Amino acid sequence: MNTASTLLLDALVNPRSIAIVGASGDAASISGQPVRFLTQHGYRGALYPVNPKYREIAGVACYESIAALPETPDLALILVAARRVPQMLRECGERGIRHAIVYSSGFAESGPAGAALQRECTEIAGAHGMRVIGPNCQGMVSTASGVYAGFGAPFGVAYRSGGLSLISQSGGFGCALLLAADELGIGLRHFITTGNEADVSLLELVDACIDDPGTSLIAAYIEGLKDARRLVGVAQRALDAGKPILAWKVGNTADGARAAASHTANLGGASALYRTAFRQAGVIEVSDVADLGDYANAFGMARLPRGERVAVVTLSGGAGILATDVCAQNGMSTPPLTPATIERLAPLVPAFASLNNPVDLTAGILTDPRIFADTLQIIADDPNIDAIAIMAAAASGEVARAMAGAITRVFAATAKPMMVAWNARRDMAREAYALLEEANVPLFPTPVRCARALAALSFYARARRARAQSRLAKPPAPRHVPHATTLIARGQGDLTEHASQGLLRAYGIDTPKSVLVRGREDALSAAHAIGFPLVVKVQSPDIAHKTEAGAVRTGIRDAATLAQACDEILANARRHAPGARIDGVLLQEEIRDAVEIIVGIENDPSFGPAVMCGLGGIYAEVLRDVTFRLAPVTHDEAHAMIRELRAHAMLTGARGKPAADIDALAGTIAALSQMALDQQTSLKELDINPLFVLPQGEGVRAGDALARAIALPVSPEAVHETGCCESTVMDG
Amino acid sequence: MNTASTLLLDALVNPRSIAIVGASGDAASISGQPVRFLTQHGYRGALYPVNPKYREIAGVACYESIAALPETPDLALILVAARRVPQMLRECGERGIRHAIVYSSGFAESGPAGAALQRECTEIAGAHGMRVIGPNCQGMVSTASGVYAGFGAPFGVAYRSGGLSLISQSGGFGCALLLAADELGIGLRHFITTGNEADVSLLELVDACIDDPGTSLIAAYIEGLKDARRLVGVAQRALDAGKPILAWKVGNTADGARAAASHTANLGGASALYRTAFRQAGVIEVSDVADLGDYANAFGMARLPRGERVAVVTLSGGAGILATDVCAQNGMSTPPLTPATIERLAPLVPAFASLNNPVDLTAGILTDPRIFADTLQIIADDPNIDAIAIMAAAASGEVARAMAGAITRVFAATAKPMMVAWNARRDMAREAYALLEEANVPLFPTPVRCARALAALSFYARARRARAQSRLAKPPAPRHVPHATTLIARGQGDLTEHASQGLLRAYGIDTPKSVLVRGREDALSAAHAIGFPLVVKVQSPDIAHKTEAGAVRTGIRDAATLAQACDEILANARRHAPGARIDGVLLQEEIRDAVEIIVGIENDPSFGPAVMCGLGGIYAEVLRDVTFRLAPVTHDEAHAMIRELRAHAMLTGARGKPAADIDALAGTIAALSQMALDQQTSLKELDINPLFVLPQGEGVRAGDALARAIALPVSPEAVHETGCCESTVMDG
Repeated sequence: MNTASTLLLDALVNPRSIAIVGASGDAASISGQPVRFLTQHGYRGALYPVNPKYREIAGVACYESIAALPETPDLALILVAARRVPQMLRECGERGIRHAIVYSSGFAESGPAGAALQRECTEIAGAHGMRVIGPNCQGMVSTASGVYAGFGAPFGVAYRSGGLSLISQSGGFGCALLLAADELGIGLRHFITTGNEADVSLLELVDACIDDPGTSLIAAYIEGLKDARRLVGVAQRALDAGKPILAWKVGNTADGARAAASHTANLGGASALYRTAFRQAGVIEVSDVADLGDYANAFGMARLPRGERVAVVTLSGGAGILATDVCAQNGMSTPPLTPATIERLAPLVPAFASLNNPVDLTAGILTDPRIFADTLQIIADDPNIDAIAIMAAAASGEVARAMAGAITRVFAATAKPMMVAWNARRDMAREAYALLEEANVPLFPTPVRCARALAALSFYARARRARAQSRLAKPPAPRHVPHATTLIARGQGDLTEHASQGLLRAYGIDTPKSVLVRGREDALSAAHAIGFPLVVKVQSPDIAHKTEAGAVRTGIRDAATLAQACDEILANARRHAPGARIDGVLLQEEIRDAVEIIVGIENDPSFGPAVMCGLGGIYAEVLRDVTFRLAPVTHDEAHAMIRELRAHAMLTGARGKPAADIDALAGTIAALSQMALDQQTSLKELDINPLFVLPQGEGVRAGDALARAIALPVSPEAVHETGCCESTVMDG
Repeated sequence: MNTASTLLLDALVNPRSIAIVGASGDAASISGQPVRFLTQHGYRGALYPVNPKYREIAGVACYESIAALPETPDLALILVAARRVPQMLRECGERGIRHAIVYSSGFAESGPAGAALQRECTEIAGAHGMRVIGPNCQGMVSTASGVYAGFGAPFGVAYRSGGLSLISQSGGFGCALLLAADELGIGLRHFITTGNEADVSLLELVDACIDDPGTSLIAAYIEGLKDARRLVGVAQRALDAGKPILAWKVGNTADGARAAASHTANLGGASALYRTAFRQAGVIEVSDVADLGDYANAFGMARLPRGERVAVVTLSGGAGILATDVCAQNGMSTPPLTPATIERLAPLVPAFASLNNPVDLTAGILTDPRIFADTLQIIADDPNIDAIAIMAAAASGEVARAMAGAITRVFAATAKPMMVAWNARRDMAREAYALLEEANVPLFPTPVRCARALAALSFYARARRARAQSRLAKPPAPRHVPHATTLIARGQGDLTEHASQGLLRAYGIDTPKSVLVRGREDALSAAHAIGFPLVVKVQSPDIAHKTEAGAVRTGIRDAATLAQACDEILANARRHAPGARIDGVLLQEEIRDAVEIIVGIENDPSFGPAVMCGLGGIYAEVLRDVTFRLAPVTHDEAHAMIRELRAHAMLTGARGKPAADIDALAGTIAALSQMALDQQTSLKELDINPLFVLPQGEGVRAGDALARAIALPVSPEAVHETGCCESTVMDG
């Protein structure tokens, strides 16, 4: 990716002149469409079709070559066959054109030869400091400038103008979203499809839109991000700018990920890390077309809740239950109203109304809409309430108009977000709907969609609050820890447990008392230094799963058993992995009465370093009770991770056991985050499983650790240090 | 609930005459509306308003009392104040009226006094053999007979006629669903709201609709079912009749369940058991209004897939990924096409098309729609494919028309289900949409909704196949096991572990070798009979959680440790629960190297007996990796339960361990199902945790068992059998 030259969004979306390279006179063909659509939508800049076959296209003068153009255009659209694209880009670069869009297919998505062509395009763009969108994309729309630079029927639609900028990695699906957004009444700012992303990435465009004054809401359709590690930073900038990002990430399941891989040349990415990054950075995840419209509708109100406490006010018990369900599933609460509020309400409402939350006013309220207005105002004044969701059921006609009037009056008198679910058909409540739309009160057709949109607002508001707090704290920065770096470099692949333990101690993570010995002869004196009971394990860089190899014995309480165990596990290890390098036997104090947790580092090729925490022991892989965060993770954030686990209940002292040292566990996670940052160029992954979390005040012990270095070519200096048995060369 | 007199659906929905008791001359009031709506929609039977205040209402003669009516009407609508309802029902009963609908509020939903009124209504209905709908309901609509017997604006709408019967426990929300279904073009057969269900329940109405020739699809909006144990039977009848049931159950989360409880007098029920029952009985769960329309649309095709294998054919890579994601999340697969199919397709499709599944034809196909038709036919012929989902993206205009023509031709030539997601705006693909609708090819606005609707078809088809198979097998029937019944009766509440073990052995479930002794003096000889290592536990009906009480010791390897352990745990138990009855100390062989599973019985007040299986040990409560089935459960079904667990991987031999005796575990679950059936009048619940599952061929051992009897009054015969220490009276 080219990071040397900045993307100038304004030049891309508001060009003074456009060259259309490979333009065709056949208006029905793909390469004939851009000139037609640009003309149709009233683009006012200069158009320069380039094609030696034509003198003019649709009444516009056509040029023989890029070199022959009368001026240097701001933007070039490239519509020639794939094999000719590099030459055209080169000519654009030589002519000094700064931005190009390549529509042609036949690049990385089609196999190795296409991938080579694509790499050539990337290099040409870099060499000329030119920014290239595509290849294999469907183009762009910018409503303010009338730039409809694409092909296909969706480019024939005149979109209403507005604040939504939609960036999509899929052309076809991007167009579908664009049409849906328009149908839902959402005004468009920019629509840009990114295709194979030989140069400009979706995240770069999202980043650029944050600074675009006309953009108030950003939506992104994502199949996979090669520069995913930029995501958090971009999202934080968007949070600071108050521009919500809605993201639709597809390819979440195994089958879906396979489809994503075959569709574009992008990496599918680990969906867990995407979800983590979205949540961590306040990106709002959407999962269907309707979400996009609903959330845009909610954000259009320009109000955010100050907390999670929702009052559900309903005319139908069923609708109230539905809304309450969705609130609870999304981290919001429906707390009781204050006693003062209930006291004010009780004399007003119908006899069978329920003043719990949901507040069920029953259909009886319809007989006197003034009561509805008073009730709503009293609830809006309740200090226990941050937002109001109104379930108007199927109220219609004159009653509906009166209710809508009441809602708009209370909406004007409060700063709290209010939104309405109304099931009446439009023709049955036309005036009511018009009143709400005019007053900018978000209106939804079902309780579920209303509550989900409120959940999106609530999630975003929470992320803004967290961001405001975190800006006060200085984020952890990478440090230089040479001892640890040396340990990883020496490991040349999988580090032994002994080496991994050294790495942990360099970051202040306690390990059980342990000594590495060659065999039974040295074991006894080491055992006396540690004390029984003991665990013994074979140490070999070539045996990652010691239990399976029969190379671990636990519960050793005396010298005779120890000697026998040493012999046995060495024999088992040699049988299990003939030719394995064996460093010796590790004697370790046996830890009891601790909660077994797994913590670790994953240095993802797309996202960069992340840390993980979950339920440990042999259950870890089966139960997948884990949570991730991209590094850096603060001590407070580490506590939040621990609270997310189902296993959290085991740490707080369930079943009569003492509470575990949760703070020490949080400290360990923060230390791993620091290690992940410091060693990100050398450390691929690290697992501590189990991490024994002892009772409160007693800390943690890393029971077993496995670290893996990023593979490097074997160099003569990197000799194996402690090998004492057979040695074989491994390729890292 | 009255089960003595059958519900005659036809008399209810197609009455020859209707009395409106409490009818008002004020057309705007609730009690003024039914006469108006019945007249407006052309009801042809006789109308008899009953109200001493009027001579006529809206031109219809009004009567002073029910006794004064000129004939006995088929149906009475009761619109008087709650306190007068019992008297009116009594008069209806005396007059010989067989069906009544009570609209009035102020019954069980409003507190104890209302609940007493409601019980009175139930009794009156029973005494007269009259079937009563409501109270606190909104009435009903039946399109064929023009019966619009309700209040509120939704009863003013003339619904299109069709095969959907919608039964709702919520009036307001039921109306909202009704309007939404109408807007989505779904024709209505009956709409009935059930309110507090003093007599007729939602399930009775669903059951009646199965036999209604005009009903082809049933939808139910459920807050809680008092007669939930009928659900499976009713659903099986519906499966046999080929009438899908769509169910929307609300109150799934804790907050939601609280709202459900305050809304009607129904029990919220355990949502896990609802979900279990739906899945087990082929009831299709819906979760938003759109689902109802989408699934009705899909079932309208009247085709079911023969298996789970879907071909996703797409013009947009993104849409293909989305559809594939949803298929994978819902138990369907998108397998590769056969080599023969790929060979036939390869020469036809554009160069950049992908012949993996999803089959991505790319936008290039639009240049020649004939290729699209041929491609689709070849895929429809593939024997590896059971259904086809077509993602038409935003194709529009003439190309769209040609594509729609191709789809309808292939649809006519195959018996496989086909459905289409099409994102173009209606005005951009009008002709195409009309062609598909005319040919009955289900059409959806987004890939996600298309794939979810296909998932609903697929789920239903699977349930039909399972039902067809299970009808060949004779289901397990309750048996008489007097020994077990006696053990439970003697338990008088919590059974001791020793007594519970006796119960298990009566059903052939192995327990570890164990002996109950009074104290250290008898322990040693018992230990020699069992053999070391041993576990010892205090036995007391008053100490359910022995670990917390310090009343368990494990790993006892010699006589001295055993004697000490006996003393200690008895002392701990007395300290933990002073005054507890203590039966003695249980010595048990210690089981090692087994997988710890939890299995159990839950005898739910609504659903009746269910069995449970999950990950056991101390993790059970924290990790909730459990699955339920309503009893009876066959051996095969027990295997299916085990496969649903995440812990399944631990049983198949993960991490170098031997595979566990899964078949013995399945046998244990089936045995518990038998016990649950046999003892359903006396056994409240039973947990075995852990159930040790030994390596293949070695069976299982019930490590610890806790059984609880259904509470009964203490009788003098029920003396405590083996108590040897302090005894206190417990109240069961």
